[in-house]
Amino acid sequence: MTELRIGMLGLGTVARGVVSLLQRNAEEIRQRTGVVMRLVRIGTREPHITWGLNLDGITLDTDVDAVTQDPNVDIVVELIGGLDPAERLVHAALNHGKHVVTANKALIAQKGMGLFQTAQENQRSLLFEAAVAGAVPIIKAIRESLAANRIESIHGILNGTCNYILTEMRQRGLSFTETLAQAQEKGYAEADPSFDVDGIDTAHKLAILAAIAWGTPPNFSAIHIEGIRQITDADIAWATEMGYRIKLLAIAKYRDGGVELRVQPTLVTLSSMVSQVEGVFNAVFVKADFAGNTMYHGRGAGEQPTASAVVGDLMDLARHAMGSGGGRIHPLSVLPHYLRALPVHDVADLVGEYYLRLAVLDRPGVLAEIAAILAKNGISIDAIHQKGRSLQEAVPLVIVTHECRERDMRNSLLELERLETVREKPLIIRMESGLV
Amino acid sequence: MTELRIGMLGLGTVARGVVSLLQRNAEEIRQRTGVVMRLVRIGTREPHITWGLNLDGITLDTDVDAVTQDPNVDIVVELIGGLDPAERLVHAALNHGKHVVTANKALIAQKGMGLFQTAQENQRSLLFEAAVAGAVPIIKAIRESLAANRIESIHGILNGTCNYILTEMRQRGLSFTETLAQAQEKGYAEADPSFDVDGIDTAHKLAILAAIAWGTPPNFSAIHIEGIRQITDADIAWATEMGYRIKLLAIAKYRDGGVELRVQPTLVTLSSMVSQVEGVFNAVFVKADFAGNTMYHGRGAGEQPTASAVVGDLMDLARHAMGSGGGRIHPLSVLPHYLRALPVHDVADLVGEYYLRLAVLDRPGVLAEIAAILAKNGISIDAIHQKGRSLQEAVPLVIVTHECRERDMRNSLLELERLETVREKPLIIRMESGLV
Repeated sequence: MTELRIGMLGLGTVARGVVSLLQRNAEEIRQRTGVVMRLVRIGTREPHITWGLNLDGITLDTDVDAVTQDPNVDIVVELIGGLDPAERLVHAALNHGKHVVTANKALIAQKGMGLFQTAQENQRSLLFEAAVAGAVPIIKAIRESLAANRIESIHGILNGTCNYILTEMRQRGLSFTETLAQAQEKGYAEADPSFDVDGIDTAHKLAILAAIAWGTPPNFSAIHIEGIRQITDADIAWATEMGYRIKLLAIAKYRDGGVELRVQPTLVTLSSMVSQVEGVFNAVFVKADFAGNTMYHGRGAGEQPTASAVVGDLMDLARHAMGSGGGRIHPLSVLPHYLRALPVHDVADLVGEYYLRLAVLDRPGVLAEIAAILAKNGISIDAIHQKGRSLQEAVPLVIVTHECRERDMRNSLLELERLETVREKPLIIRMESGLV
Repeated sequence: MTELRIGMLGLGTVARGVVSLLQRNAEEIRQRTGVVMRLVRIGTREPHITWGLNLDGITLDTDVDAVTQDPNVDIVVELIGGLDPAERLVHAALNHGKHVVTANKALIAQKGMGLFQTAQENQRSLLFEAAVAGAVPIIKAIRESLAANRIESIHGILNGTCNYILTEMRQRGLSFTETLAQAQEKGYAEADPSFDVDGIDTAHKLAILAAIAWGTPPNFSAIHIEGIRQITDADIAWATEMGYRIKLLAIAKYRDGGVELRVQPTLVTLSSMVSQVEGVFNAVFVKADFAGNTMYHGRGAGEQPTASAVVGDLMDLARHAMGSGGGRIHPLSVLPHYLRALPVHDVADLVGEYYLRLAVLDRPGVLAEIAAILAKNGISIDAIHQKGRSLQEAVPLVIVTHECRERDMRNSLLELERLETVREKPLIIRMESGLV
């Protein structure tokens, strides 16, 4: 089994997620790539802060440069953030023949071109799915899934902090300042929130998306950037009154041989999908000539979602750049010899709530008979709606149940069908209240 | 420049889209893969139906077997659909050393395992992104972007015909039969609609997604399948009354060492995102241990969206399995020498509607002064909201404009700020009404 040795720069929130993920899902990763991923070295300013992680066998010290040079390291994961020393270290790692995975949007947006060139010179990969929209795989979607398309426009909500603040301001009627303070308490905003609330972070991500969409160097400095500090609770209330939401949008549009690039608070109509993206979620909407409109939604930040994207990039490297499979990803993800038959649960055993529609003769005692059958099968009733009255014909009766087992429901149906007062085959439709 | 020669089986709707796409976006494809894709041969039952396409230089006849054997063909694209002869032809193509791309969900769901094995034996790729949810890149998302995760559940709307019918039934209050007839007229439903409305098509797609999510052979026959024929307009009306939508859902959940696999009409709460997926759109929701909930939305069928997915797969093959780049995809998608600086349009030139908030002294003539300034700059007013009255203090005045140029708006702001009756710096927020 091939081993892929990882050196990590930084040991903050995202790094903690990456370490946990590599440990928890080691077996899945191995079955899907044919590679064992081993974290061998971590360089961090504060090696004493280890979050209770099990770091046995991993070299852990403050020597970040050593991580980029260590001959025992195949891939460097850069999770320091910021430009300095991240830029220098990524160049060094590439020059030492390592592939690099980073979650650093400022670095890619502002120093990307130089890094891409170093990667190219060394025939190494520099991957950064985690830099934009966390767990939402928007970079892969544009670069690979939509690769056959001409991209017409991209718009999105790319900063969870701003979206959380705007959502809370609307839902609670609080001011920007109050809401920001609360977001800081909850850890959704930094002590110095300027990068987020002034739109810089969103603009970094927009610069990256536009660069990929149109094959152009990231052009962060050309982006028109407005933040959300000036938005009052009154603005939000008036927008709502007029049928709008206020969202901080990143917008990139191609037209007339050039691009529009802007980050700005925007009134969007309530009927748009983008208006429904709430709280810390991110969403990206891409319009392309053949694919049409596609949309990608998920958690844009945080320890676990960002770790998911970082390790996804590591697995891409394992499968493609470093793999022995000729670049083929196995059709069912895992290597063929790990395929396993999975038992399929009998639907009759499932528990759920049901919508039950009957056609009944409207006679005294009908409801009692039906309720008795359901009760006998252990099914309790949440609501009953009888629709219309008629002495001659059957009338519809709709019953909503509490949670019950499908088998009990099916048995009830058999008994209900036999009632003289039930005139058509009853219909059940499952209800799912816990869905996203 | 490497050339990649494509042989195609079938010349129906999707094939037409693939031919158009390969022609229209040939330059984008070349810049992003470093490969020229050339369609060299088409085998179809009806070679006289060519949809007005330019097929110069392409061998076009009824000999489908020849396509799978032609030494001038590198990749076979199977767009015949159904099991026979598609299954035989895909085996043949793989055995003759071709990679295969298909949009055939029935084939993968029911005969996939045998084909995967033939592909493996021949060290060739069999790609099928187009088989599930059209332009929505859900196969790549699960297999690659979420590869580091344990998938907990998947639910989705995977059949546009059913979703269109249910949406129309609700919006127009029509019966299933009437709506189906209309869908058939519009080309959203087949003459024989059973595959769609009885849930078979959705189940094929669910079998594929579950197989990829959990590394298990596609198990179509184990899926509990219900269609939508029995849903009445009254059911939909009652569901709406209770705060629900009825959707045909595909659901797969992992628990207790096994999976739940079911396709069934489901009452979903109006507050869920899945309830908002309307008309012919598809959406897939994935819950994963690290990524959390992610969602993917777009057109699930049709000539162009499906072609986008097919050619995306061809480009994956060009970049990985057949490419010379060591499996590396260039960071900005295009090969480095195709990068070009793109002009960025001046935001001042953009045209849009604006929300303008002023704080004004509530004196006679104030509105006239403001309106005159806007008029002088060519800005016309859509609506004015004055909020509250006060003789002493400034009161908020909100103006919504018709479309105007940002430059004119900025000039207006400079003049408005100078008015003695305008007490604070005015705020503008752009309005975007055309967003998805």
